Amino acid sequence: MSGFKAVALGGGHGLHASLSALRVLTNELTAVVTVADDGGSSGRIRREMNVLPPGDLRMALVALAGSAPQHQYWAELLQHRFGGDGVLVGHPVGNLLLTGMIDHGEDPRRALAVLGELVGAVGRVLPMSPAPLDLIAEADRFDPEDPDRVRRVRGQSSIAATPGRVRSVRLTAPGAPACAEAVDAVREADVVVLGPGSWFTSVIPHLLLRELGSALATTRARVLVVLNLVPQAGETDEYSPADLLRVLLAHAEPFGGLNIHAVLADHDAVLDRKELEGFARAIGTRLVLSRLAAKDSAERHDPDRLSEAISRALDGGDSERVDAWR
Amino acid sequence: MSGFKAVALGGGHGLHASLSALRVLTNELTAVVTVADDGGSSGRIRREMNVLPPGDLRMALVALAGSAPQHQYWAELLQHRFGGDGVLVGHPVGNLLLTGMIDHGEDPRRALAVLGELVGAVGRVLPMSPAPLDLIAEADRFDPEDPDRVRRVRGQSSIAATPGRVRSVRLTAPGAPACAEAVDAVREADVVVLGPGSWFTSVIPHLLLRELGSALATTRARVLVVLNLVPQAGETDEYSPADLLRVLLAHAEPFGGLNIHAVLADHDAVLDRKELEGFARAIGTRLVLSRLAAKDSAERHDPDRLSEAISRALDGGDSERVDAWR
Repeated sequence: MSGFKAVALGGGHGLHASLSALRVLTNELTAVVTVADDGGSSGRIRREMNVLPPGDLRMALVALAGSAPQHQYWAELLQHRFGGDGVLVGHPVGNLLLTGMIDHGEDPRRALAVLGELVGAVGRVLPMSPAPLDLIAEADRFDPEDPDRVRRVRGQSSIAATPGRVRSVRLTAPGAPACAEAVDAVREADVVVLGPGSWFTSVIPHLLLRELGSALATTRARVLVVLNLVPQAGETDEYSPADLLRVLLAHAEPFGGLNIHAVLADHDAVLDRKELEGFARAIGTRLVLSRLAAKDSAERHDPDRLSEAISRALDGGDSERVDAWR
Repeated sequence: MSGFKAVALGGGHGLHASLSALRVLTNELTAVVTVADDGGSSGRIRREMNVLPPGDLRMALVALAGSAPQHQYWAELLQHRFGGDGVLVGHPVGNLLLTGMIDHGEDPRRALAVLGELVGAVGRVLPMSPAPLDLIAEADRFDPEDPDRVRRVRGQSSIAATPGRVRSVRLTAPGAPACAEAVDAVREADVVVLGPGSWFTSVIPHLLLRELGSALATTRARVLVVLNLVPQAGETDEYSPADLLRVLLAHAEPFGGLNIHAVLADHDAVLDRKELEGFARAIGTRLVLSRLAAKDSAERHDPDRLSEAISRALDGGDSERVDAWR
């Protein structure tokens, strides 16, 4: 199977990982990127201008960059963070360039296409929504004496770092529009990859936009879910892999659920294999367990290993569990 | 005469004008740009990072931009100033992009070449020095009761806005290096154009770097000096056109003077024509008087008119004064 239409949804380093794996398998690749970030350089930019948070979009572009010297030159430049000791420090050049293009009046999709040309992108990058979004989470287990008490946590960076346990996430503006091209891409895809990435703040948000959630529920694409290698401190450290699938499906419920073709996970990230196997069987999904972590870092997906696992997940076969030992 | 090697030296809007005029006449064009700016966006950037002030370099690139849609797109984007209400406001996108490239470790000349490609530049842009420079001026006439008392004024933006009368300008670091490619360009040029522009802060600084001053003194190129349309408030409002030539030559003295082939001026900017004619005759230079101001602005050179005046100045003929009525 090659030249298939693939859509990867996520944000940050997780999306970088799925794109790096998919670009080896196909060049008909669309990245759909969360636009709810309010921390770091993106947060600083959002606080002074009404633009999409550029950081995750930039990182997706770089993940798709071509290998020619001039493309790598631009990709490295977009990633370079300003030094010095003033107000620019820490901003990646690409964040400011993309922000400048949008501030200049350019449609974000067109701005991303222009930058995609500069880096020789294999595929395209789209924001999940044409407008910046904000998240609110509900979390419990703040107080050992009253663990069920629920608090609201507002903003992606606060949710990602909150103590307690995040239970659900929603948009502050429930009717926010999805990017029409992203919706079309999901509808027309052969393969959709959700995750890896910060579960409540980069992966689940794609299920919160009505049109995008509906497209994910009804697409004829095979939907692959890639689990994380390590729990997100705070956000998901109390969740087992099966729990993560449960909350993902719960968030997909309002728009018709999610038909997961296969779940991809790293051996070592699954402490209770029986629980995950049982849950996968219950929802009628294949489980592809293999080594996904990079050799030099247990926290980073190896693109080649993830790529191979995706291939195996798509390769048919009827067994509901695929062990892909290397 | 076409396809001749031309070098325009200056900064800011003045250099934009000479480049816009020259690009019609030749595509072997080098812009040599002052790097002493410490005001506006460039000043803000210099205060937090040790880089060349990008503003005048950016404006020279834009003056040389190609006319194809993608070149104009980038040229407009580089000029776009950030909006919003935060720390980015007012920075042109091009200033941040060029700064990011240099901060990333790129040689400024190479960074300018890469941006030159983006805008399809006709010719190239070089900084006068590889390192940022600082100016100190001596000025008098601050105090009506003691008009001869001299004060020092430090920094390009302070000098450009100082009360009193600027008498001379020098570098805080007298041995600062010139950009070797700029020196070579001046040596190998057929035509060198100095001005228009802020006299003490954009034009004269080129005479302050030893190698560049020497190259200007000894080049076999025909040196054209383009006078301003209106006096610079503060900086030169007490100077007649002849006075401006006098201070220019005085600053060229240490490196061997300046052999001016022709002086170009606008009719209406010369109040005392006899004085200017007399001075031109005294220094053995041609005087080309014509209408140079734009139809819609008495303060802006019209590229076509300036272009035609440059052609006339280069067209030989022995008369020491050329009147180019239109």
